Amino acid sequence: MDQVPLKGPIRDEELHVIEEGAVLIEFGLILEVGVFEAMAKKYTGEADIIKFSEELICLPGFIDSHTHICYSGTRARDFGLRNGGSSYLEIAENGGGIWDTVTQTRLANEHVLTQNVVSRANRHLSEGVTTIEVKSGYGLSVAEELKMLRSIQSADGLSYADLVSTCLAAHIKPKDFFGDNAGYLNHLVRELFPVIKQEKLTNRIDAFVEQGAFSAEEVRPYFDLAKAEGFALTVHADQFHASGSALAVEMGAVSADHLEASTDREIEILAKSHTVATALPGASIGLGCDFTPARKLLDAGACLAIASDWNPGSAPMGDLIMQASALATFQKLTNAEVLSAITNRAARALQLDDRGVLSKGMKADFVLYQTGHYNEILYHQGKLTPSEVWKDGKQVFKKD
Amino acid sequence: MDQVPLKGPIRDEELHVIEEGAVLIEFGLILEVGVFEAMAKKYTGEADIIKFSEELICLPGFIDSHTHICYSGTRARDFGLRNGGSSYLEIAENGGGIWDTVTQTRLANEHVLTQNVVSRANRHLSEGVTTIEVKSGYGLSVAEELKMLRSIQSADGLSYADLVSTCLAAHIKPKDFFGDNAGYLNHLVRELFPVIKQEKLTNRIDAFVEQGAFSAEEVRPYFDLAKAEGFALTVHADQFHASGSALAVEMGAVSADHLEASTDREIEILAKSHTVATALPGASIGLGCDFTPARKLLDAGACLAIASDWNPGSAPMGDLIMQASALATFQKLTNAEVLSAITNRAARALQLDDRGVLSKGMKADFVLYQTGHYNEILYHQGKLTPSEVWKDGKQVFKKD
Repeated sequence: MDQVPLKGPIRDEELHVIEEGAVLIEFGLILEVGVFEAMAKKYTGEADIIKFSEELICLPGFIDSHTHICYSGTRARDFGLRNGGSSYLEIAENGGGIWDTVTQTRLANEHVLTQNVVSRANRHLSEGVTTIEVKSGYGLSVAEELKMLRSIQSADGLSYADLVSTCLAAHIKPKDFFGDNAGYLNHLVRELFPVIKQEKLTNRIDAFVEQGAFSAEEVRPYFDLAKAEGFALTVHADQFHASGSALAVEMGAVSADHLEASTDREIEILAKSHTVATALPGASIGLGCDFTPARKLLDAGACLAIASDWNPGSAPMGDLIMQASALATFQKLTNAEVLSAITNRAARALQLDDRGVLSKGMKADFVLYQTGHYNEILYHQGKLTPSEVWKDGKQVFKKD
Repeated sequence: MDQVPLKGPIRDEELHVIEEGAVLIEFGLILEVGVFEAMAKKYTGEADIIKFSEELICLPGFIDSHTHICYSGTRARDFGLRNGGSSYLEIAENGGGIWDTVTQTRLANEHVLTQNVVSRANRHLSEGVTTIEVKSGYGLSVAEELKMLRSIQSADGLSYADLVSTCLAAHIKPKDFFGDNAGYLNHLVRELFPVIKQEKLTNRIDAFVEQGAFSAEEVRPYFDLAKAEGFALTVHADQFHASGSALAVEMGAVSADHLEASTDREIEILAKSHTVATALPGASIGLGCDFTPARKLLDAGACLAIASDWNPGSAPMGDLIMQASALATFQKLTNAEVLSAITNRAARALQLDDRGVLSKGMKADFVLYQTGHYNEILYHQGKLTPSEVWKDGKQVFKKD
C-alpha cells in the first residue's frame, strides 16, 4: 500500500501485490518486504522471516480512527424505539440519547471502564484492527472525563492493540453544567486541559459540531485555545446538517468525521485540504441514514478514511470490515480505496507515520487471511475473519 | 409469538413475553410453555423442563425462507468489479454473473456440493437459524438441477438444521440451451418435473421474473403446469423492475421475494393477498441498492418475511440477524416485526405450520441468548450470537 496515492481514487490495479512474499522483522519493525526466495538467500541472521503461502494474504494491520468504545451500559431500548418510529426528542425525553450513556458511564468505576475498553479492543484485534482511536465524551465533567481518559490509558497497556485516545469533552453540554455552551467549553480549557497535559492523557481534542451540540462559532475559540496548547484537532462534522467540516479545514484539523450531510461545497473544501475525510458507515447502518458521499469525496481528490464509530447509541455493531464493505457497495468504492481507507489513509488521520503500510521501518503490524485473493476479504462482508494478527512483530491472535 | 397477528404492523408491546419462563419438551415437541414454578409443580414425569434464567432469552428457532447456499466457487471478482463501477453487462462479458456460478457449480460433484451446503447450514444453525430454504438454480440442465436437488436432500440428512428445497431451474435460460425461454421452461416441465416427483426432491417451484431472466407471460404457463402437478409456487419478484409480484398473487404463490422495486401498486396487491412478501436485505447490502419497502408493506397490511438470500453473487454475507437488523434501521421496523418476519411469518412462506412459535404441539426448535432483554438481539446487529440452539428438542449448538 506504500505506492498508492494518499488522496483521491485508486484502482485495484494500482495495489502493489507481491506473490510468494515474505516480511522480515526485527525488534518489532519491518526490515524488508519482498519475495521469499530472494530474502531467504540474502538473510541468514537472527531476524525472523515470515513467509506467506499462496493461500495466505497479508495486509497491514487495520486502523480504526474513530471509536467511542469507552462506555458502560446499553442503548438497546433507544435502538428499538428509534426503529419503532420515535424521534430523537422523544427518545431523549424517555431517558435515552447520549445523556443516558453519560449516566451509565459515570456509574462505572475506572477499573470496570478499563475492562470494557480492553474487551472491545481485543474483539477488534481479532478482526484485524491493530490500532484503535478511542474517545472520551461520556463523562462530561472534569473528573469524569479524566476517569475515561485514564481508563483508555490503562486499557492501552492491557491490550495488544495500540489505543490512541482523544478528548471529546465537547460532545454535548452536560445537563448538570450551569451555564451556556461557551461557558462549558471555557471551563474545559481552564480545568481539564491542564490535567490532560500534566498526565499526558491525550494530544487530541475533538468537538461535535451539530444542532443540539455545539456551533462552529462556539467551537472556534475552544479550538484556538486547544491549538495554542499544542493539541491536534478533529471534528464530528456534517452528520445531520452541513456544519463542521469548513471549520475543520479552517483550523487545520487532522480529520473531519461523519460527513453524511456534506454537500458539494463541503466536499470541495475537504478535497482541497490536508484534513482527512472520515466516513463512518456504522452510524448509517445503525441509524438507517444516508451514507457519507465517499465516492464524490474521492473523485474530488479527498483523502478518505473509513472508521467504525463503534458506540452504544448509533453504531453498536463495531465490525469495521463489514461496515467498510457496505460502504463499498453503496458508494461504489474499489477494494484498493477501502483497504487504503482503513490502513495508510487512516494512519494519516491519526498522524501516525509508523504504520498502515508494509514497508521498511514500519511497525510489523499485519493481518493474515487464509484465502486465495485479497478481493475475498471485503466480498465476505465481515464473515471472513483473519487467521492471524501480528502486532509489533508478535503474533497476538490466531484463529482456532 | 403465537398471539401476534400474521399480517400488518406489530408493536413491541404486543409481544407475549413470559418472565421466569420454561418450555416442557417431549419427543421433540413442545408440550407446554409457561412459568417455571407452576410447571415444575404440575409435571413430575419424564418430560424435560427447560428453565430459562433472567439472563437468558428464548425465541423460536429462526427460519430463513430464501437462500441459494447450494453452490461452488466465489464471485469475489464480480463484487470488486461492481464496486469499481462496472455494469452488470460488463461483468457478464468478463465471465461473471450467474453463469459463472453455474459453471463453477457444474464442476463440483454431488458430494462436494452436499458438503458445501452442510457447512453453510451449520454456520447458519450456530447463528440461530434452524430451518433453511435452499434453492437449486445453478445447474440449469435437467441433470445438473437434479444433482443440486439431490445434494440439498443429502445435506438435509447431514445437518441438524431442517432444509426445505426449492427448484429454481427457471433462474435464467442457460447459455447452452438451444431454443427460446418458453422452449426451456417446457423442457423443464417435460424432463425435470417427473424426476423431481418420482424422487420426492421438492414440492416447490420458483422462477426469476425480471428483465434478462423470464417475463411474467413466459412464467404463467410454466406455473400453470407446475400447479397442476401439485407444486407450491414462489417468485423472485420486483428486484430491479416492478415485475413478478402481480403474477405471484394471481397464481396464488406462497411468497413473492425481493420486492426492492415494488411500487405502491404492487404493495397494495401483495397486502390484499395471502402471498407472503419476503424482503432480502442481504441483496441490498451486497449490491448497494434500495431496501425493500418493508414499512409500507406492513402498513398496507402485508405478511412480511425477511430472509438472507445467501448466494455468491449478490448476498455473500449470509448473516440473517445482521441483515434483518439493517432492514429495521433503514425501514423503521419494530423488534416484533423483525422477529416475526424470521419466525412465524417466515414459516408461513414455507407453509410450515409446525414451527415459528413457542406453543404446545410445535417443534421444540429454539434459540437462547445470554442477555437481559430481547431488544439486545437486533441492537447488536449480528454480533450477539446465541449461547445455545435447540432443534427438535435437542441441543445442537452451544457456544464455547
